[in-house]
Amino acid sequence: MTITIDWLNVPAAVPNEARRLEAEARQQILTKPPGALGRLEAMAIRLAALQDTAQPRVEHVHITVFAGDHGVAAEGVSAFPQAVTGEMVRNFAHGGAAICVLARALNATLEVINLGTVNNPGPLEGVKDYRLGPGTANFTQAPAMDEHQLACALAAGRHAAERAQLAGAQLFIGGEMGIANTTAATALACALLGHAPDCLAGPGTGLDAAGVARKSKVIQRALDLHYAHLGSPIAALRRVGGFEIAALAGAYIACAQMGTPVLIDGFISSSAALAAVRLRPGTENWLLFSHASAEPGHRLILEALDAQPLLNLGMRLGEGSGAATAVPILRMACALHNEMATFAEAAVSEATDASRADCASADEAPTIPVHPHAPEKVT
Amino acid sequence: MTITIDWLNVPAAVPNEARRLEAEARQQILTKPPGALGRLEAMAIRLAALQDTAQPRVEHVHITVFAGDHGVAAEGVSAFPQAVTGEMVRNFAHGGAAICVLARALNATLEVINLGTVNNPGPLEGVKDYRLGPGTANFTQAPAMDEHQLACALAAGRHAAERAQLAGAQLFIGGEMGIANTTAATALACALLGHAPDCLAGPGTGLDAAGVARKSKVIQRALDLHYAHLGSPIAALRRVGGFEIAALAGAYIACAQMGTPVLIDGFISSSAALAAVRLRPGTENWLLFSHASAEPGHRLILEALDAQPLLNLGMRLGEGSGAATAVPILRMACALHNEMATFAEAAVSEATDASRADCASADEAPTIPVHPHAPEKVT
Repeated sequence: MTITIDWLNVPAAVPNEARRLEAEARQQILTKPPGALGRLEAMAIRLAALQDTAQPRVEHVHITVFAGDHGVAAEGVSAFPQAVTGEMVRNFAHGGAAICVLARALNATLEVINLGTVNNPGPLEGVKDYRLGPGTANFTQAPAMDEHQLACALAAGRHAAERAQLAGAQLFIGGEMGIANTTAATALACALLGHAPDCLAGPGTGLDAAGVARKSKVIQRALDLHYAHLGSPIAALRRVGGFEIAALAGAYIACAQMGTPVLIDGFISSSAALAAVRLRPGTENWLLFSHASAEPGHRLILEALDAQPLLNLGMRLGEGSGAATAVPILRMACALHNEMATFAEAAVSEATDASRADCASADEAPTIPVHPHAPEKVT
Repeated sequence: MTITIDWLNVPAAVPNEARRLEAEARQQILTKPPGALGRLEAMAIRLAALQDTAQPRVEHVHITVFAGDHGVAAEGVSAFPQAVTGEMVRNFAHGGAAICVLARALNATLEVINLGTVNNPGPLEGVKDYRLGPGTANFTQAPAMDEHQLACALAAGRHAAERAQLAGAQLFIGGEMGIANTTAATALACALLGHAPDCLAGPGTGLDAAGVARKSKVIQRALDLHYAHLGSPIAALRRVGGFEIAALAGAYIACAQMGTPVLIDGFISSSAALAAVRLRPGTENWLLFSHASAEPGHRLILEALDAQPLLNLGMRLGEGSGAATAVPILRMACALHNEMATFAEAAVSEATDASRADCASADEAPTIPVHPHAPEKVT
């Protein structure tokens, strides 16, 4: 009996349209100009539809960081030994990494899954050891994963999503750590979008122009090798993806199937999100995008997903750190939606509308709905 | 004995450059690629210098909302009776306005100062009644304020800043409420920047093109009337400003004099910040900018202040709401700065640097400082 990927065929849940309309209507009667809270309004409305509630909340946040090594690191796309991935897993376990700090600040659940590092960091509290091998194969020479590894990585993501759901999480965040994983994420996005590597390859954490050119050539060799198979999203994921990227895709799909909203992190997470949407259309309805990465190729992936991230702070760390940073924005959006007074409750708007109707034949005749907080409106 | 404005001559405090350098150095040794936290790093570094500490924090936030009416509303730049300003003051007192919700979410101190509304909303818990008249004069016909009113409004801002300081606030936020106050803020910015009203006047909460054109003409009439005096920032503030705008400027200057960091809200607050910087150079060092307002003229004011706001969420509410929304970003920046492990603490970087030095003569010879979390770097 082997782990299968049949569950990918389960349809994504459908957001509640009635809740969306209800939330939209509520935003119109809160004591502010309609639209004056900008994207905070849109986020609250969307979360109401996704969570099927009149009072959306993101107090319970579940963060899973997936770690894995990449055989393509052998092609000189990283100056670092792959052992660093395992060392960072240890840093996650000891609470010193950025995502640990952010998770504590958010009072979020943080779990770390080791899907396969070159070195075994040993048993670590809070780290699940699901190693599928000492990293993926070098995808310039062979598929990154065999079918069993891919199925296991996807399942690891699904399990994380299910644990989040069982624990009552109102939002799921996936993070990643893996030396050379912008190379894999770029290769996967190129395969799925049909772009040349030159369009998407970027400096990662600081490649110079020559380094980016070299990285781009490595990716091109991989795309050439696997060319005949890249029309299939699942084949593309297996051949040029990575353990943690497949796990993220699996988690996103499972969240969509169960109806758990997801907040997507940066470049690598977005590449995984693209794969998830191609593997299971409908997944896109459950994805919110947290931030625009400093990695230049992120823009093309976001455009393909029709995604407008909330933040643009020049972050490029991964680990789920950009998504975690955006959580308070969603919390603010929910608090405003749930707690602001309506015009009726505050006894403000009714009188103003009446006074407007009374002067409708005077020289200042308002013709569109207004409310008392609008500083200037002349019709 | 009258209230004077002599205190405006007190120099602004000077941020601690040694603390800035110390914080900058710390960001280089945290377990992440240098720069990978983007603007979060810059914010933590700046707050360390402003707060003169190795561990910057913005847990204690003081928010003061200043309310005032505007005589220029008589020119038809608002479809609403001025009484609405007072009604919103009541909404602030009752906790139903956006800034109340946000202040609760932040566990921030919120106080409301009524500097002069057309209608007296009566005694309200949590609202200080400092009314200087039933709104400003119509500045198309006369100066908005007399000298005593201006001095009192500036002092009201100074007092708010001093209360924040006495209470141990680590960050000050000023908010505003006043029907027609984008007209005053636009007139003031035009006076200070030498721009024509057409460059700065915007739709506020929803003017159509004809409405904006009318608003622009009203502002031009005011600028023509006061033309001979607008070379002086204090005269510009008195003649085309407003009670709440002057109070904000006074608060910002006092914060700078005492060394309290300020987080600036949107369009109106930025116009007040511009006045503050012109009145007391050096104030700019203490101002952080929270968000880019949907009001199009905001961009020009931000450019004049060389300010890059943290958020761009299409907000245009005022009340200090955009600044409050950005507070968690600053809190995250501080938490990361204070709590992340260094490479040495996490036992990650030292070995990597050594292994890099060992292979310096091999074909992959790194030449620039690296750290273990950087996925791709080829030299």
